Amino acid sequence: MTLKRKTITGVKPTGTPHVGNYIGAIKPALDLTKDDDRQTLYFIADLHALNSIHNGKELKQLTYEVAATWLALGLDPSRSLFYKQSDITELVELQWILGSVTNKGLLNRAHAYKAKMDENKGKDLDEDTGVNMGLFNYPVMMAADILLFQSDEVPVGKDNIQHIEMARDIAQSFNRYYGDTFKLPDAIVSKETAVIPGLDGRKMSKSYGNTIPLFIDEKELEKRVKRIVTDSTPPNEPKATEDSILFSLYQSFAAPEETEQMQQAFADGIGYGEVKKELFNVMNRTLAGPRKTYHELLENKQKIDQLLREGAEKAKPIARRQMEIVKERIGLL
Amino acid sequence: MTLKRKTITGVKPTGTPHVGNYIGAIKPALDLTKDDDRQTLYFIADLHALNSIHNGKELKQLTYEVAATWLALGLDPSRSLFYKQSDITELVELQWILGSVTNKGLLNRAHAYKAKMDENKGKDLDEDTGVNMGLFNYPVMMAADILLFQSDEVPVGKDNIQHIEMARDIAQSFNRYYGDTFKLPDAIVSKETAVIPGLDGRKMSKSYGNTIPLFIDEKELEKRVKRIVTDSTPPNEPKATEDSILFSLYQSFAAPEETEQMQQAFADGIGYGEVKKELFNVMNRTLAGPRKTYHELLENKQKIDQLLREGAEKAKPIARRQMEIVKERIGLL
Repeated sequence: MTLKRKTITGVKPTGTPHVGNYIGAIKPALDLTKDDDRQTLYFIADLHALNSIHNGKELKQLTYEVAATWLALGLDPSRSLFYKQSDITELVELQWILGSVTNKGLLNRAHAYKAKMDENKGKDLDEDTGVNMGLFNYPVMMAADILLFQSDEVPVGKDNIQHIEMARDIAQSFNRYYGDTFKLPDAIVSKETAVIPGLDGRKMSKSYGNTIPLFIDEKELEKRVKRIVTDSTPPNEPKATEDSILFSLYQSFAAPEETEQMQQAFADGIGYGEVKKELFNVMNRTLAGPRKTYHELLENKQKIDQLLREGAEKAKPIARRQMEIVKERIGLL
Repeated sequence: MTLKRKTITGVKPTGTPHVGNYIGAIKPALDLTKDDDRQTLYFIADLHALNSIHNGKELKQLTYEVAATWLALGLDPSRSLFYKQSDITELVELQWILGSVTNKGLLNRAHAYKAKMDENKGKDLDEDTGVNMGLFNYPVMMAADILLFQSDEVPVGKDNIQHIEMARDIAQSFNRYYGDTFKLPDAIVSKETAVIPGLDGRKMSKSYGNTIPLFIDEKELEKRVKRIVTDSTPPNEPKATEDSILFSLYQSFAAPEETEQMQQAFADGIGYGEVKKELFNVMNRTLAGPRKTYHELLENKQKIDQLLREGAEKAKPIARRQMEIVKERIGLL
């Protein structure tokens, strides 16, 4: 018997999940859960969300939405460990402990923090304007998230590789002081996925207001698909699939043979109106079932609470065991 | 019935307690416990000690020594809430939460951090050399220590006033975002106590190696007292009490009328050898009983464990209640 690789992913409840999240993050993560060699750990990173969401009602609602989204799309809590970060108090304990072996200089070099500093300098502001300690400490908490469960690997996009390197640095620093304790995690960098375009062709992002929320109703979905911008190639003329938002989205929802047919249809001069109809069809086919489950779950939040509680109950003993080892080594009685 | 004022003090287990600690911190703190209008909370700040003590055995030993010292000198756990910081996991939870409403700029201005930066700059080093995140986050954890228990006041020396101001700032920031939740604590600044001199006349400090550990045995105590430096005024000549290490220490251990008599004796030209004998007598008189208790406690660490456990059991429900309020407001489910 070989040990399963532990694969961990955190999801920040900072916005209503949209189609871009689905294609870029949720679908690939759910695919990983089907791998029998992997133990997947998926957690809702509510403690990380606190940095940007300073409104209790909003954070609660978003937490439920994110949980319902993953569950509706097929996350199986009996196969994956599914929990909420704030339920595992060992995580903040470990975050504090790791802070005491983490050089501040390491965090000064964090990309997200440096980007914020550069933005401030560009506006002639003090470089730390709008930086709270949740943001600055982010990489330490992320190290705790990963290390507490002795995770082997963390699927990340390119911009997040540094966080995994930092988690390794921090683990090494702890191990150097106190003896071999934490496993060094590896980043699994997702293959260069095309940026998921939004309605207006820019990256689909809450901040651009160009998203297609995953679980809007059928009519609204159809309306949004119709609003997707296209170039002005007239019907009956051959169309390029590269840089076509419609084609890119179609590909993400259709079966491979459907995609091939659509590629041919583009070459044959299919009209954009027709493409939008087909796109709506494949999207709605994928999303109709989950949409129903999603709304049922949000109508029955106790069910979500219960599933998260059960997840926490499974995660806690693992966390506690690891913290007993850690506390013994660092000398907490 | 009026509510008791809550007075909180943390003690870092970073060195074997010495006479300077006793005069400057422990004795005044124990005096406060006798005040019926006060509820005193005294905790061992082991999570703060992690920043500087990266050795598990050492931290454990120092934690026992500090606990035994306070208990031996008369701390009564039935009058004061006496607990270990790391036993109250709510503290690290609150530290994380407070971080998300604490501007990094506030911590950039912390005296302890700035002093370290200046030291580094003076040595032409990167300004963050040797600064770990435990040090940088220190004021946030200290705010959590104080605010979690809705403390009214914190006795501090002058160099620590800023920490209390920061705790107020952080509390105000939280209250602004989430509604009135935390009480703003006041600093009680101890009246200008003379710096406690060590054997060589400099401030008594572990880092100068000039301390008189509180509970060394009688013979060793006598030896150390004999080593205290004096000026070269010959016996039978009048001696100044100002700047006299011997007189300063004598005053801290003797009764007021004894001090008066000693002042007269200085004027009358008492020899330093004689003063040292008297000083040893009053010190030993005060310390003999506690010394015995201290060593008994260190021989019986389970007793210390038990007292700290009982303290944690009393502190936990208070901490938990407050965190329920906090979590509800910030939107953790």
